[in-house]
Amino acid sequence: MAIRDAAGEEEPLLIERRRFELLRATSKSSSQLALVGSSVSAIESLDYEIVENELLSQDWRARGGRANVFEYVLLKWTLCFLVGVLSGCVGFFNNIAIENIAGIKFVVTSNMMLANKYMWAFGVFASSNLVLTMFAAVITAYIAPAAAGSGIPEVKAYLNGIDAPEIFSFRTLVVKIVGIVNAVSASLHVGKAGPMMHTTACIASLLGQGGSRKYGLTCRWLRYFKNDRDRRDLVTCGAAAGIAAAFRAPIGGVIFVLESLASWWRSALLWRAFFTTAVVAVVLRAFIDFCKSGKCGLFGKGGLIMYDVTAANVAYHVADIPPVIVLGVIGGILGSFYNFLLRKVLRIYNHINEKGPAYKLFLAASVSIFTSCCLFGLPWLASCIPCPGGISEACPSIGRSGNFKKFQCAPDHYNDLASLFFNTNDDTIKNLYSAGTDRVFNKYSILLFFVTSYFLGILSYGIVAPAGLFIPVILTGATYGRLIGMLMGSKSSLDHGLFAVLGSASLLGGSMRMTVSICVILLELTNNLLLLPLVMLVVLISKTVADCFNTSIYDTLIKLKGFPFLQGHAEPYMRQLTVGDVVTGPLHVFNGLEKVGNVVHILKTTGHNGFPVIDEPPFSEIPVLYGLICRSHLLVLLKKKCFLPSPLSVQVNEFEQLSADDFAKRGSVRHETIYDLAFTAEEMEMFIDLHPFTNTSPYTVVETMSLAKAHILFREVGLRHLLVIPKLPCRSPVVGILTRHDFMFEHASQLYPSLIGGKAKLFQFRKSSVIKMFRSLQ
Amino acid sequence: MAIRDAAGEEEPLLIERRRFELLRATSKSSSQLALVGSSVSAIESLDYEIVENELLSQDWRARGGRANVFEYVLLKWTLCFLVGVLSGCVGFFNNIAIENIAGIKFVVTSNMMLANKYMWAFGVFASSNLVLTMFAAVITAYIAPAAAGSGIPEVKAYLNGIDAPEIFSFRTLVVKIVGIVNAVSASLHVGKAGPMMHTTACIASLLGQGGSRKYGLTCRWLRYFKNDRDRRDLVTCGAAAGIAAAFRAPIGGVIFVLESLASWWRSALLWRAFFTTAVVAVVLRAFIDFCKSGKCGLFGKGGLIMYDVTAANVAYHVADIPPVIVLGVIGGILGSFYNFLLRKVLRIYNHINEKGPAYKLFLAASVSIFTSCCLFGLPWLASCIPCPGGISEACPSIGRSGNFKKFQCAPDHYNDLASLFFNTNDDTIKNLYSAGTDRVFNKYSILLFFVTSYFLGILSYGIVAPAGLFIPVILTGATYGRLIGMLMGSKSSLDHGLFAVLGSASLLGGSMRMTVSICVILLELTNNLLLLPLVMLVVLISKTVADCFNTSIYDTLIKLKGFPFLQGHAEPYMRQLTVGDVVTGPLHVFNGLEKVGNVVHILKTTGHNGFPVIDEPPFSEIPVLYGLICRSHLLVLLKKKCFLPSPLSVQVNEFEQLSADDFAKRGSVRHETIYDLAFTAEEMEMFIDLHPFTNTSPYTVVETMSLAKAHILFREVGLRHLLVIPKLPCRSPVVGILTRHDFMFEHASQLYPSLIGGKAKLFQFRKSSVIKMFRSLQ
Repeated sequence: MAIRDAAGEEEPLLIERRRFELLRATSKSSSQLALVGSSVSAIESLDYEIVENELLSQDWRARGGRANVFEYVLLKWTLCFLVGVLSGCVGFFNNIAIENIAGIKFVVTSNMMLANKYMWAFGVFASSNLVLTMFAAVITAYIAPAAAGSGIPEVKAYLNGIDAPEIFSFRTLVVKIVGIVNAVSASLHVGKAGPMMHTTACIASLLGQGGSRKYGLTCRWLRYFKNDRDRRDLVTCGAAAGIAAAFRAPIGGVIFVLESLASWWRSALLWRAFFTTAVVAVVLRAFIDFCKSGKCGLFGKGGLIMYDVTAANVAYHVADIPPVIVLGVIGGILGSFYNFLLRKVLRIYNHINEKGPAYKLFLAASVSIFTSCCLFGLPWLASCIPCPGGISEACPSIGRSGNFKKFQCAPDHYNDLASLFFNTNDDTIKNLYSAGTDRVFNKYSILLFFVTSYFLGILSYGIVAPAGLFIPVILTGATYGRLIGMLMGSKSSLDHGLFAVLGSASLLGGSMRMTVSICVILLELTNNLLLLPLVMLVVLISKTVADCFNTSIYDTLIKLKGFPFLQGHAEPYMRQLTVGDVVTGPLHVFNGLEKVGNVVHILKTTGHNGFPVIDEPPFSEIPVLYGLICRSHLLVLLKKKCFLPSPLSVQVNEFEQLSADDFAKRGSVRHETIYDLAFTAEEMEMFIDLHPFTNTSPYTVVETMSLAKAHILFREVGLRHLLVIPKLPCRSPVVGILTRHDFMFEHASQLYPSLIGGKAKLFQFRKSSVIKMFRSLQ
Repeated sequence: MAIRDAAGEEEPLLIERRRFELLRATSKSSSQLALVGSSVSAIESLDYEIVENELLSQDWRARGGRANVFEYVLLKWTLCFLVGVLSGCVGFFNNIAIENIAGIKFVVTSNMMLANKYMWAFGVFASSNLVLTMFAAVITAYIAPAAAGSGIPEVKAYLNGIDAPEIFSFRTLVVKIVGIVNAVSASLHVGKAGPMMHTTACIASLLGQGGSRKYGLTCRWLRYFKNDRDRRDLVTCGAAAGIAAAFRAPIGGVIFVLESLASWWRSALLWRAFFTTAVVAVVLRAFIDFCKSGKCGLFGKGGLIMYDVTAANVAYHVADIPPVIVLGVIGGILGSFYNFLLRKVLRIYNHINEKGPAYKLFLAASVSIFTSCCLFGLPWLASCIPCPGGISEACPSIGRSGNFKKFQCAPDHYNDLASLFFNTNDDTIKNLYSAGTDRVFNKYSILLFFVTSYFLGILSYGIVAPAGLFIPVILTGATYGRLIGMLMGSKSSLDHGLFAVLGSASLLGGSMRMTVSICVILLELTNNLLLLPLVMLVVLISKTVADCFNTSIYDTLIKLKGFPFLQGHAEPYMRQLTVGDVVTGPLHVFNGLEKVGNVVHILKTTGHNGFPVIDEPPFSEIPVLYGLICRSHLLVLLKKKCFLPSPLSVQVNEFEQLSADDFAKRGSVRHETIYDLAFTAEEMEMFIDLHPFTNTSPYTVVETMSLAKAHILFREVGLRHLLVIPKLPCRSPVVGILTRHDFMFEHASQLYPSLIGGKAKLFQFRKSSVIKMFRSLQ
């Protein structure tokens, strides 16, 4: 509570948003802006509703032809298989590239230091870091700004039903892969797990839409996947594959997606996601077996083979519980403070980034140089330690691997700080996790490294390059875990490596608020079921403590970025409002037989994506709601020019001209707009029969229904539009349309400013830590 | 397809049902009958909707007071903790009791055989089995018929929203625990995992309702759990704890519930369920450590310590893939045939059981005697094998444990069939799974055991006693897995123990159609991540093959038992119908101010549980739908006699007499009915103001909405009643009410017999194997 901001600072990063909100208040539109990666883009809602109209009831899904079903099922599993294979390949490629690039850098630098050319060594180290960072930053800033950051907030928003055009494009994919390899090789304090997950989600999405339509790579069978529901399933599997590839944790990947990412879930999807991650595990295993023969350069020769951590034999007693509880509490406090600081830093960075690409690159360069100085400079503060006897490892080791870095020390001595700083993050984690090394590190070295790592992680995330949060958090957590272990001394019998693992779990729990997935991932990393109770205890405590202060880091980022995220539960204030209270803006409706000119005019003057279709006299006795038609379907009709000369003329058979595939939704490419179409004056006077293309079964709520219940319906069914119908039958048959934005607190509080202020005191509760705990724990 | 029945045999076991259906067609009621355990009971729908009315908006959930929230959260976690501890204790108790009872039986019998008293040995063996079986059958038949069978179908139905009064009662709990201990100790071919899960779900439900209200054991705090939503969550956690206790698989338990049992799931629940199962794991571990000191009788001294299986080191190559595929195909065929036969046998058993308790007991006795004859008689067919040299185990072993049973053999010889037959099922599984025992078993012995085990499993399930299906399926699968391994001979390098594990996986996949949960449970049993890809492959194949023939065993049982289970997806025929097409029966509505006499009359003459409340002139201009009121709330009002002397009289303040707690839903006890209340003639002429107690935000659908979409709304939101409103505003403001039964195929086909026959040929598709594959794989 103490570290929570005043309400004024709760706004999203987006400066444009406020302006946009004003715009929206006058002409309601369901497209909006959000910060996708590092650039502001228009976002759109996805639509998971099944459209039921005359045309689509002729479609295969309704008919259920055997051949189609067979094609569909086969393709679904084939796509999952391909996603798995490609994810495995990308995961392996990323690792091998990073290990080799970073490895060469460290080998060259170490050799220079051996020759006592310290200034030269620093020069080579810092400049190679700078070049790598700048390469990553330049391609991100100029080619695919959506590739910046971890991508987890974007994917989470996508799976909640928010689409942004560039998040799954081909260039985002390429920039994300190249960028993360460069950023991590540049010794920046960033992780590769989040970007890995974005990459694989990208691959899944691109495979589903048949490669890139721009390059003509598509397939007839893929028409089954040209809708938001199937695409969501595929992206879910892709995301699971990414986490599985990053941590070699097939079960952990699935559970991470289930727990932290996905907003909708079916048990059938569980199996498909699991199949995908198992394929990833098999592919990675094959690659690693291949590398064991030494054909992969510096990869695998002492480097961390993708977290092949095996903790010491775990034996714990009741006496070990108190330090674990302490770790949990510390993890909760540090984790929530991490989220708090990260938000502050991102706000500052955003002000800088907004000024233009040059500023973005300058920021990235500054962070890189500062990081190089820390990594190279701080180890000099440590005193050299004589090598312990009777160990199998080389001491001091000269190259990049091993626990005992020589750095500036005399022979037979090692610099423990350099073992932590002057290494890839993966190697450092491995060092910290390794068992039987209780005496290797000095207390003050660990403390110094903890402080540096904590702040470097926060400073590095916001630059314009792909950057994950997992590894910095795991690393920082491992550090203070070990520190606690040292402070406990002989009071605890646990190995310090185990303390490091528990520390990582506590900071992950405190910052990301994952629970089961942390346990499972750590279980799979350490392959030790006995660890489970301790990890669970520490995560339970750290999450509970952290939930008293603020929300999880991904929720914070999603809010900062301005995504209209629909929570799974209704907020208390929603019970006090009815849907009629929040429906705003002029409603545009079409007649069942509508003039082309009217359609074009309304499409041009509004940003709406759904329009009620109403049959009016003389076609019916009184105005009756016929259904709902989407903008995209109207555009298809206008483009195909399915017009009638007069409303009463004999109908042409629309089904001959059009098939269900014409209405299929394309992937994340720029859609055609009404401005791309041209009409003659004659055409503008003609009519369209909207009936066969109108969704005749839209979900409706009565205007007096409480907003909370409408929210549950909207969220559970996965709607884009929800029609509000009047309670008394004397007015128009439809009162308004609810979209995702109408369920946002910002919308309600704009209409009813008293919601925030005194009246119901509802937002006093909202701020109370107990409520937050309640909501997160329930 | 070949083994699927003609449509005529697809009806549920329930004979009464048809009569009931006729009843229902005339007076629509939402309570119905189903076979719960072994007796026919009335079932009821659960209601997960949040009631929003004037009275309850004063409730703590809407107010969100801090102290209440704190109590609620604390209690929720405390209950989960208690469920975990109690589940661990029950799991341990069951195992120790079974191991000791069965152990003594085997030791006594073996000693007699050593003394060459073979007839005496058989007599003791068969009679002790018979006594144990009869005890289990008698208590089940006379005290708690709901405890018969595995309980998984009942719990699955409960989590889908179908309540039966006795499934979670205290006597069911006791009978289930005592019964399963006796049934398994009696060497019946039944498992303990399913009943274990039912037991823990019972514990969770009873804890949530505060022990038994009958015995006055309740607690003020528990009022938070007196609703179907919180109870559902608690039962979900309980079910996960049961599987976790049965297999010592905390992650597997959660995933089993997620995949196979739960119809609704939230990510917050994931964490709570996982917490529960972790507590179970810790408790079991503590007990086992305690038993290692030998204080637990025959438990743990060579007996299977709850599946502490550790498979051989897995090393597999491409050449091992074909036998695994063969295993998968065989598993699929055998599994679906298993389901087919089980259904046939259950139909026959049901005809017997219907004739009365004596017949039930006779059936149980017959099965027990037949089983005893098989177990004791068949090993005589095997020839004695000389003991292999150089093994650490005693050969032949005399008592009950070990792979090498002496049985009738000469010294230094053992009977391999007796090692399989004359053992507890757990020990047999352990023998089959054990590595490095490729030459211990004879091919024909394994074949004979496989055939016996396959059919014994099918014959034993339907008797009137607690009986699980997991263990028989695992055991049978392990047998043919080993057989395939033997037939492969030197062509495969895999250990035969590993083949047994894969065989179990394939039969589980083929019969129960679980996927991820099998993989995870086997992973946790064997503690070997490397096994994962092979298990996945075999499960994927066996499930795909089996899905071509019929549905999973639990779905089959649910259908047989007559539960109106709501599937997660809409069937194709539902797209062809509108909700208006399926709404039937006379609709009973109440006025906002209703005469007590009318209320009493309607409650007495109908079985409805929800009534629309309508404001009519002169209280409003035209008839307007005010909301929906439940029967249970009306009963509270009638009981408390909150009456007004005349419709226009000054209102008494109802809130002073009533609190939200009065409307809380009780546990699975017999509810009060309208016949329990008495009214004077004067009271009958008075009025009730229903407004403050009416749910003002019921979900509504327009009568022209397709049934498929209404199904999605009904299922996703978890409703009990769905109001149908007219499209044209000239009639009554509500057309009808949809309940769970209106979404059943039986209901639609009764109204539209053409659905089954020619017209749309929809049910041709339903029978096609491709569609089934599609539905199960999607």
